Amino acid sequence: MERKSICIIGTGLIGGSLAIQLHEKKISSRLIGVETNQLHAEAAIRLELVDEILEMDDAIAQSEVIILAIAVDAAVKLLPVLLNKITNQIVIDVGSTKSELIEKVKQHEKRGRYVATHPMWGTEYSGPTAAVRGAFENKAVIICNAAESDTDALQWVKYFYQKIGMHLIEMEAKAHDLHAAYVSHISHITSFALANTVLEKEKEENAIFELASAGFESTVRLAKSSPEMWVPIFLQNKEHVLDVLNEHIGQLEKFRDVIQNENRNELKNIISNANTIRRIIK
Amino acid sequence: MERKSICIIGTGLIGGSLAIQLHEKKISSRLIGVETNQLHAEAAIRLELVDEILEMDDAIAQSEVIILAIAVDAAVKLLPVLLNKITNQIVIDVGSTKSELIEKVKQHEKRGRYVATHPMWGTEYSGPTAAVRGAFENKAVIICNAAESDTDALQWVKYFYQKIGMHLIEMEAKAHDLHAAYVSHISHITSFALANTVLEKEKEENAIFELASAGFESTVRLAKSSPEMWVPIFLQNKEHVLDVLNEHIGQLEKFRDVIQNENRNELKNIISNANTIRRIIK
Repeated sequence: MERKSICIIGTGLIGGSLAIQLHEKKISSRLIGVETNQLHAEAAIRLELVDEILEMDDAIAQSEVIILAIAVDAAVKLLPVLLNKITNQIVIDVGSTKSELIEKVKQHEKRGRYVATHPMWGTEYSGPTAAVRGAFENKAVIICNAAESDTDALQWVKYFYQKIGMHLIEMEAKAHDLHAAYVSHISHITSFALANTVLEKEKEENAIFELASAGFESTVRLAKSSPEMWVPIFLQNKEHVLDVLNEHIGQLEKFRDVIQNENRNELKNIISNANTIRRIIK
Repeated sequence: MERKSICIIGTGLIGGSLAIQLHEKKISSRLIGVETNQLHAEAAIRLELVDEILEMDDAIAQSEVIILAIAVDAAVKLLPVLLNKITNQIVIDVGSTKSELIEKVKQHEKRGRYVATHPMWGTEYSGPTAAVRGAFENKAVIICNAAESDTDALQWVKYFYQKIGMHLIEMEAKAHDLHAAYVSHISHITSFALANTVLEKEKEENAIFELASAGFESTVRLAKSSPEMWVPIFLQNKEHVLDVLNEHIGQLEKFRDVIQNENRNELKNIISNANTIRRIIK
């Protein structure tokens, strides 16, 4: 397929990592960044993630595809503005929540130019310096409410994600937000809460540092993730997040009760049940 | 130092991985396994983790060093028996809890021959087939209540752990059990509970499988750990585990409340606080 001029709004972890792939896989003829954070803009140029940084209106006018890679609260505000500004460009977002965003532009006359996606990849780091080569490969990308997008826009988005090594899953926005709460959002809350627990209880930081094993590090790794990204996600997906968080607190209370009562058999049962996650994750 | 004839009681993940290192680092002249599980015994021989499997009494009689690498409840029962049987051998345990074990043999006339240790390494897998090469390197090993061990026994244990690449930390058993609850035991409970949460809430297992990102996998990884190892640890370290578990539930409730109330600032604050874990872990 012919290479396109592509604009990435937000040159952080996701936008920056996408930029690397768009170039490496020869999908883009030109990469334009839009970045309000001056330090990020400089880093995106220095790291050669994008060819140039332009003001939004210029960037949109000079692009065939616009990728929105900013926090989900900012995306909800910006997406309708983008759809007002475009002529026939394709607009893609890559955020972790989908319902509110899709609802927001449901009646927009340019709705068809927009494709809602969530590539299932990330790390606990943020900003352009966190961008990595080879990201997204062999991971899933969710395309939400595909029927609401124009055929040509949808077709190009599928081509692009497959070209960077992702496999496509189509899903309604509500189902996406529910599943995302289970398999992603709750992991982050757990990890943040675990970090706060250890920071609260373990005043001897040197002991944490010395004793922390690989197990602790893997469980608490996500606690390094940025509030700028995660606060809007938890609030936008509030209903599902609270539902799964209540269940999680209940499961921890079950552990507390069986340990308190030294109920060895039941403790063994709930651990054995947890072990069945082996069926599902590698 | 002269190589020694070494007996490993329990040829699982830890015993097996130690066996590989004892051989590779030329610490052992001969490796004898003691293993009640017949399948594990066969695997330990087939994988050449040990030179031979012997009955306990023969193994003890033919060894200069005895390493106890079994579940912590079994260790509490077996350690006094071992101290009754030895003449002048060194006995080491490698369990994740220390107070009950050390208390149990406090008055034993052979107490000096025993060195209580906890090498801070492990994986979520178990059994001889889980043993890995190069384990323990660059990790910490805790030696507890070192003053209660004979000088020669302590000296050899330090030599052995340093030779396999570990750095030594000395600590009283009570302090060890407290810190271990914070930096290891709670991570496992969190992970088990998270797995149960997702298994309970997410009936579409295919969705978990497809959508689970690296973040979810790292948070839930420890949930594959075996109940045989972890039930006795949680029960032996009950007091500290419950203390830290209550704190953790409280921290999760804090997340629940601020999300429920859409308190954006406080949500940002508690995530930013969690981010400070960066100071402590890499």
